[in-house]
Amino acid sequence: MHKQQNILIIGAGLCGSLLALRLGQRGYNVTVYEMRPDLRKTDISAGRSINLAFSDRGNKAMKLVGIEDKVKSLCIPMNGRMLHDREGNTFLSNYSGRDHEYINSISRGELNGLLLTEAEKHDNVTIHFNKKCKSVDFEKTTALFQDYETKDEFIEDADTIIATDGAGSALRKSYYLGKKFLFSFSQDYLTHGYKELSILPTETGDYKTYKNALHIWPRGDFMVIALPNLDGSFTVTLFLSYDEGEYNFNNLTTPERVTEFFQKEFPDALELMPNLVEDFFENPTAPLGTVKCSPWHYKGNTLLMGDSAHAIVPFYGQGMNASFEDVVEFDAVLDKHDGDWETIFSEYEKTRKKDTDAIADLAIDNFHEMKDHVGQALFQEKRKIEMALEKEFPDDYASKYSLVTFNEHIGYREAMLRGRAQDKAILNMLADGIISTATPIKTILDKVKSETEAILEDDRIAGLH
Amino acid sequence: MHKQQNILIIGAGLCGSLLALRLGQRGYNVTVYEMRPDLRKTDISAGRSINLAFSDRGNKAMKLVGIEDKVKSLCIPMNGRMLHDREGNTFLSNYSGRDHEYINSISRGELNGLLLTEAEKHDNVTIHFNKKCKSVDFEKTTALFQDYETKDEFIEDADTIIATDGAGSALRKSYYLGKKFLFSFSQDYLTHGYKELSILPTETGDYKTYKNALHIWPRGDFMVIALPNLDGSFTVTLFLSYDEGEYNFNNLTTPERVTEFFQKEFPDALELMPNLVEDFFENPTAPLGTVKCSPWHYKGNTLLMGDSAHAIVPFYGQGMNASFEDVVEFDAVLDKHDGDWETIFSEYEKTRKKDTDAIADLAIDNFHEMKDHVGQALFQEKRKIEMALEKEFPDDYASKYSLVTFNEHIGYREAMLRGRAQDKAILNMLADGIISTATPIKTILDKVKSETEAILEDDRIAGLH
Repeated sequence: MHKQQNILIIGAGLCGSLLALRLGQRGYNVTVYEMRPDLRKTDISAGRSINLAFSDRGNKAMKLVGIEDKVKSLCIPMNGRMLHDREGNTFLSNYSGRDHEYINSISRGELNGLLLTEAEKHDNVTIHFNKKCKSVDFEKTTALFQDYETKDEFIEDADTIIATDGAGSALRKSYYLGKKFLFSFSQDYLTHGYKELSILPTETGDYKTYKNALHIWPRGDFMVIALPNLDGSFTVTLFLSYDEGEYNFNNLTTPERVTEFFQKEFPDALELMPNLVEDFFENPTAPLGTVKCSPWHYKGNTLLMGDSAHAIVPFYGQGMNASFEDVVEFDAVLDKHDGDWETIFSEYEKTRKKDTDAIADLAIDNFHEMKDHVGQALFQEKRKIEMALEKEFPDDYASKYSLVTFNEHIGYREAMLRGRAQDKAILNMLADGIISTATPIKTILDKVKSETEAILEDDRIAGLH
Repeated sequence: MHKQQNILIIGAGLCGSLLALRLGQRGYNVTVYEMRPDLRKTDISAGRSINLAFSDRGNKAMKLVGIEDKVKSLCIPMNGRMLHDREGNTFLSNYSGRDHEYINSISRGELNGLLLTEAEKHDNVTIHFNKKCKSVDFEKTTALFQDYETKDEFIEDADTIIATDGAGSALRKSYYLGKKFLFSFSQDYLTHGYKELSILPTETGDYKTYKNALHIWPRGDFMVIALPNLDGSFTVTLFLSYDEGEYNFNNLTTPERVTEFFQKEFPDALELMPNLVEDFFENPTAPLGTVKCSPWHYKGNTLLMGDSAHAIVPFYGQGMNASFEDVVEFDAVLDKHDGDWETIFSEYEKTRKKDTDAIADLAIDNFHEMKDHVGQALFQEKRKIEMALEKEFPDDYASKYSLVTFNEHIGYREAMLRGRAQDKAILNMLADGIISTATPIKTILDKVKSETEAILEDDRIAGLH
């Protein structure tokens, strides 16, 4: 019976197009409205991240919809972080001690295009472009759209509406402004913004620096990172305060000052970027924000999903992966309660929100870790020990990074609690001289495990978490 | 020179009227606009808490403006929590082991009236009532008001504007909707709401139950509290989920069910409240929310203060005290930078926000402690030990509650970090059998102190806080 249900999806970005594909596979009548033009026909990357980190949680969703192999062909493996110091010395720090665990750089546009094409293969899925959602009437289960070309406004009715319209969601705004129920909501901005730059390929189309890593130039209060693209280029991102420190976005106003800043802080990167000044003044500076809210759903009428429900900062490389995992989790709840939207939405939020809250907090943690901690001796020692543990005991130990990134069978919240406790155990035992890099590795494993359990138990008794 | 500066204050509640008084004392030209009628002439308590907890941080502000004695005459000391179990047994748990440390019940209306009267004694302070602020133009430093009686709208200009207009602040809304800068903002609702009830005096005007305590009926998922009033009555508040549990606000819809609920859960309270059903259906059910935001100020033009900047849930009895402390902190910054509003506002936020964030989180902690933990054996043992420590070593030990409530020389954040670490230390040592109520008290003090330091140091090394 439910197969004839009409589902309206607002937004055909990464989450919306995957959701359309999956709901199409399940046999629903799916209509998608997207405000932007069809990205398979136009270049509309400006202002959005050009490439993204793709890892196991995202891949779980690709397996679910059966396109794992097609996605793989778009991926560039990154085995670790390549750290660059001020003198241009580099050091590769692997993401895992297990060789089969790595993350990937992937083009947002290519992946989104693939998902749209796969979704459209289903006759019961229709995607409309250039139609912007202005508001949603969540009582009536209708949405108001405007056609970007004709400027005409029209109302669409559906059995249920799912908004995957990103951090600036129209449905979330309607929840907030509607004041029909208690809507908890937060938007939190970092004092840092970001700007995208680029390292172009060599004249022969080769990569100018090591291809299979996520490059980081950590400088304490700010940093630059670079991820490889299939065409031989790297997309480079500068993360910098808007108004604090000697150099900041507000005072980098001339080509001379921008060059001086890079010459002083990132000389080896500058050498690869003759196009720096051009990129710097052509590309926008964008803010870094976290959005949380609750409830995500109104009765069985409407639901927020992906960034519209939980936008996060990019420092764990999990934004897209979390949104893809949303679809997997949602699909599992559909299996249990198909046909009863209110129960589906309510149970989905109940099981999922604790995990999206956790990855939001983890992403903030990693902002500080990437720009600052990765350059500190104590954290580097911890990292060495964790690599050794993962190499020596691949089935018995996973670092916080591995728990979050490569252990898709556990939720983000569990990964956060265990991972933070492990970090605390190792850092304190190192600082207290209880372990060192010279301690036998099996002894370290035992000590880390028991100390981690003790930390978790202490928190539990104190009523924390 | 600055003395001729015109300061516009929006809102003449507890924070606004205290601020007007203090700025009047400092010689500024102060104009205050309040949306409500003059509460000294009308009864407008409906829907707001009738009495409040007043303690040392609030009193610090009363000393600053020289009205400590006048306020004292409005206070009813509450020495501790009087816990009531389901069978009607009671147990008094003091707030401190030091006899001179207690909190007070005070009438919101009486205190607000006193502050207004004191402020109006200054010729340079003018207070207008029945004028609602609709919006603030923070670029032009002007505010739009509407007169409630004539419905006329008018614009007021000032050298600087300070909004003390509470949790629903018009200035904060203008920041949010203006989108002229990155505005971090959160509103978080508990799943519980509250409703005010009352225990009336006896026929001879006496208190029906023990006067000098904050009465609590903790029941795990919900609770009732009662605070005394000068007229012999108690203001009673029921905290209950909107929609979860056997009894909740959504299903308590008939006199029979309300009576049944109280008969089952609060029989001794019910006996004191023949007026229960009447109160229950006459008084509104109100939500419990936390508001945080940043920045509080726009250049030197406008500033949020009190609940408009940081509304908190009532469970630590610190809402009013925190707003009063705002004025003390602001006054100290004025001493340093008088005349330079941008520096004043910016430094005030920098020093103050960490503390108001902390009391917001502490108030949520205490929600769980009051309704749940106070009834648990481990927490009761901890409480006993802390009372003994405070009694035996009055200069050497202060519990989290004492640090927050009676140690106004340290900020809320410091009180939170130290207090939480102490709680964790005591609870874990009790659970592990390292200490018990039979351990010599000096031994307990030494162990608690060293374990607390170890916990703080472990967190510091792990990069937490």
